Amino acid sequence: MTDMLHPTMTQLNDFTKAPEPSVIKTLVEQAIAYKTNPFQDKQLGANKTLVLLFLNPSLRTRLSTQKAAINLGMSVIDINANEGWKLEFEDNIIMNSDKAEHIREAAQVISQYADFIGIRSFPSLTDQEKDYSDYVINKFKSFASVPVISLESAIRHPLQSLADLITIEEHKKNHRPKVVLTWAPHPKALPQAVPNSFAEWMNLSDTELVITHPKGYDLHPDFVGNAQVTYNQAEAFENADFIYAKNWSSFQDYGTIKSNDTNWMVSSEKMALTNEAYFMHCLPVRRNVIVSDAVIDSKQSLVIQQSENRVYAAQAVLAQLLSNK
Amino acid sequence: MTDMLHPTMTQLNDFTKAPEPSVIKTLVEQAIAYKTNPFQDKQLGANKTLVLLFLNPSLRTRLSTQKAAINLGMSVIDINANEGWKLEFEDNIIMNSDKAEHIREAAQVISQYADFIGIRSFPSLTDQEKDYSDYVINKFKSFASVPVISLESAIRHPLQSLADLITIEEHKKNHRPKVVLTWAPHPKALPQAVPNSFAEWMNLSDTELVITHPKGYDLHPDFVGNAQVTYNQAEAFENADFIYAKNWSSFQDYGTIKSNDTNWMVSSEKMALTNEAYFMHCLPVRRNVIVSDAVIDSKQSLVIQQSENRVYAAQAVLAQLLSNK
Amino acid sequence: MTDMLHPTMTQLNDFTKAPEPSVIKTLVEQAIAYKTNPFQDKQLGANKTLVLLFLNPSLRTRLSTQKAAINLGMSVIDINANEGWKLEFEDNIIMNSDKAEHIREAAQVISQYADFIGIRSFPSLTDQEKDYSDYVINKFKSFASVPVISLESAIRHPLQSLADLITIEEHKKNHRPKVVLTWAPHPKALPQAVPNSFAEWMNLSDTELVITHPKGYDLHPDFVGNAQVTYNQAEAFENADFIYAKNWSSFQDYGTIKSNDTNWMVSSEKMALTNEAYFMHCLPVRRNVIVSDAVIDSKQSLVIQQSENRVYAAQAVLAQLLSNK
Repeated sequence: MTDMLHPTMTQLNDFTKAPEPSVIKTLVEQAIAYKTNPFQDKQLGANKTLVLLFLNPSLRTRLSTQKAAINLGMSVIDINANEGWKLEFEDNIIMNSDKAEHIREAAQVISQYADFIGIRSFPSLTDQEKDYSDYVINKFKSFASVPVISLESAIRHPLQSLADLITIEEHKKNHRPKVVLTWAPHPKALPQAVPNSFAEWMNLSDTELVITHPKGYDLHPDFVGNAQVTYNQAEAFENADFIYAKNWSSFQDYGTIKSNDTNWMVSSEKMALTNEAYFMHCLPVRRNVIVSDAVIDSKQSLVIQQSENRVYAAQAVLAQLLSNK
Repeated sequence: MTDMLHPTMTQLNDFTKAPEPSVIKTLVEQAIAYKTNPFQDKQLGANKTLVLLFLNPSLRTRLSTQKAAINLGMSVIDINANEGWKLEFEDNIIMNSDKAEHIREAAQVISQYADFIGIRSFPSLTDQEKDYSDYVINKFKSFASVPVISLESAIRHPLQSLADLITIEEHKKNHRPKVVLTWAPHPKALPQAVPNSFAEWMNLSDTELVITHPKGYDLHPDFVGNAQVTYNQAEAFENADFIYAKNWSSFQDYGTIKSNDTNWMVSSEKMALTNEAYFMHCLPVRRNVIVSDAVIDSKQSLVIQQSENRVYAAQAVLAQLLSNK
Repeated sequence: MTDMLHPTMTQLNDFTKAPEPSVIKTLVEQAIAYKTNPFQDKQLGANKTLVLLFLNPSLRTRLSTQKAAINLGMSVIDINANEGWKLEFEDNIIMNSDKAEHIREAAQVISQYADFIGIRSFPSLTDQEKDYSDYVINKFKSFASVPVISLESAIRHPLQSLADLITIEEHKKNHRPKVVLTWAPHPKALPQAVPNSFAEWMNLSDTELVITHPKGYDLHPDFVGNAQVTYNQAEAFENADFIYAKNWSSFQDYGTIKSNDTNWMVSSEKMALTNEAYFMHCLPVRRNVIVSDAVIDSKQSLVIQQSENRVYAAQAVLAQLLSNK
């Protein structure tokens, strides 16, 4: 599995996972520069087209990525899966099912119309091995002839993590902040993409990462990396500078809900244990399930700033890709 | 209820209802100027983005508002509700239902990606008080940080009414034309948004407004204003200069169909009672239910001109908002 | 029926069927020129808007037509049928069904917002006479006030055929290549639009066209034209320079599947009968049903090149229409 998670990628020739720390640093700086002057590179994307392919619903990613491309003067075409037909991903198959087009053709064809392709595809949550090979986006990449950008794949959401890192950089009060990724309850079984990616990026950045969740919710060890893991949420929150809440379903007992313990909701009482920490969440968020109204509506909440930074994260990535062209 | 219908709004800081008469006059003049030269302000919208959010279907509004923005050099991103997820509008709620995101976050987030937001949302037709507080668009407005434009809300359709007024201005033969808003039958229970808004705008303009409908279809008195109301359609049509047909469901017996009396269809016989009146409808229209083929296909029909004026109405409004930025 | 298929059309005042041979020649040359320099006419489409209306799903056509318009500096607005409501096409009808708007209004209205309109509409496959009058697109055209471009109609797919012809021109090794259109099996009953159009265009070009299919799959004679028809696929493949595979349902026993004989799949063995022929298909294609993996993945396969040429075919057509404006 490790090999599938870590194929050789030393350059930002696509954007489907975390790049190297030096590239991350450059992206954060570039994003913050774009935030000050969004249109400074309006000519960079002239005559370039970004095609966004949504196999799953999207609000923030759809809008922020389009806005980022517009800021760079690119054209954008977005398409939802249901505007076409179902895709076949398996090889050596007699295509007699309801799937009308093979990913081999689809990826090559879309590459004819795009300078870059963004793709969103959620995991099955039933086939761990396939999901953790990041099957859909990697199949797509292997046939595409232009760089592919992840708009959230089965196991990663890199544009979100870059926006999160930018937000932390903007708000941190000390050089190496304590960042706590905490599991929180949710009525539905959700992917591990956001917590995986967040942990991956934090591990590549100058932060002290602590991950806390109930037993049975351990993330894949390659994403956990050097983070400290504890099942004691209160202990984790002590001295925290940032609380990053997110639900995910079990990795071990794959795709299942092991607990919906409402005690894990992020409340004012728990935030009081921290070092006046900021509250973060990638959104959409279930109020009074993941986090109390009081916390998300407080001055310490950064959720809207995170969403704003989605534009500049995407813009920094697109600018890098445009410069490499 | 009156307070909810008439919050203080002395400037065009958004466009969710009718502005003051002096502003209406300016908008009509500007729209007619744009009709002559649609691209005269092509630079005005440079680096500005309009996000259109459709919680309900749309054809004319979707296309005309996009065209208006394009004419002003703006970028447009449109999104349908079903491309994301269901929104929660209630406060102090444990979000354990099928609604994945609260309007508080959604409105703030979209505001990060837009200079202006257009939103379409139809009424429930079951909860009169909530609908008449214009709940959805006002909730959205209260959390948005950029101006909001109504693409038809529960109780108003201001861009339609502005286009209607422009059309009347272009075709009126006397200074104060007699304009008749007539109910007509329809197989489905429809909102009161279009007749409400039309009456509101006519009351703010130099027209003699007569409203005619069967008993049980009286509109909210705040929209009726100074208009004359009669249950006698033939009487209403006498000397009319403009016949504006529209179905709506009952306001009193809220959201119900009280009558589907086919005698209320607008026919050539009825048009003969008028002062060679023009026929108007906002479209889409049910032929031979609302209006006979003969009337809508006659030279007196202005329905296509109304739809054309939707572009210039939206363009005048967007230009005003851009100038205020 | 012949009259319906061949109304007077001596100029490219719209693009709903094949133009005259001299126009075809110009379009192919223009398309190849655009392929070398896609942005050479970036100013041609300034302040022009293309509205694309999809009554049926689309991937290649949707993306390639948008890209073509972008290359010419046009604005594009695309809309799916399900973003609006159902359209009524019948005249003299009391519109009390689930169809909310008549094509008469819809076509006129959209014409107010567009310089050109593209429309995709598949056949019923149940009413041969109606389908072969190309009912939907011709109804739309008869009420539209701007040029209409077919994005595939009930019986033709001209933008596909132009792209196919460009691909043949680019790859042909002799002046008059032997081009074989072969039926191939498919699990669903499909339209005849692609084979009809392909045969129509080949008949207007300098090719030797052979059509091969099982008994019961003869195409409409007006499309077959001067082509040789044989039920012997192996015989047809002999000395072929291009093999164009496509499934279609029966024209005679309208819309039915007469055979799903897997022996008609295009395999390496059959390709060995040809003059090292190229393999072509419009996509989406069912692998190992229409064509074997080995053939479509071979160097002789031109399917991706065909999809690339969809951009330049559309761009040549749009440029012609823009020049005629």
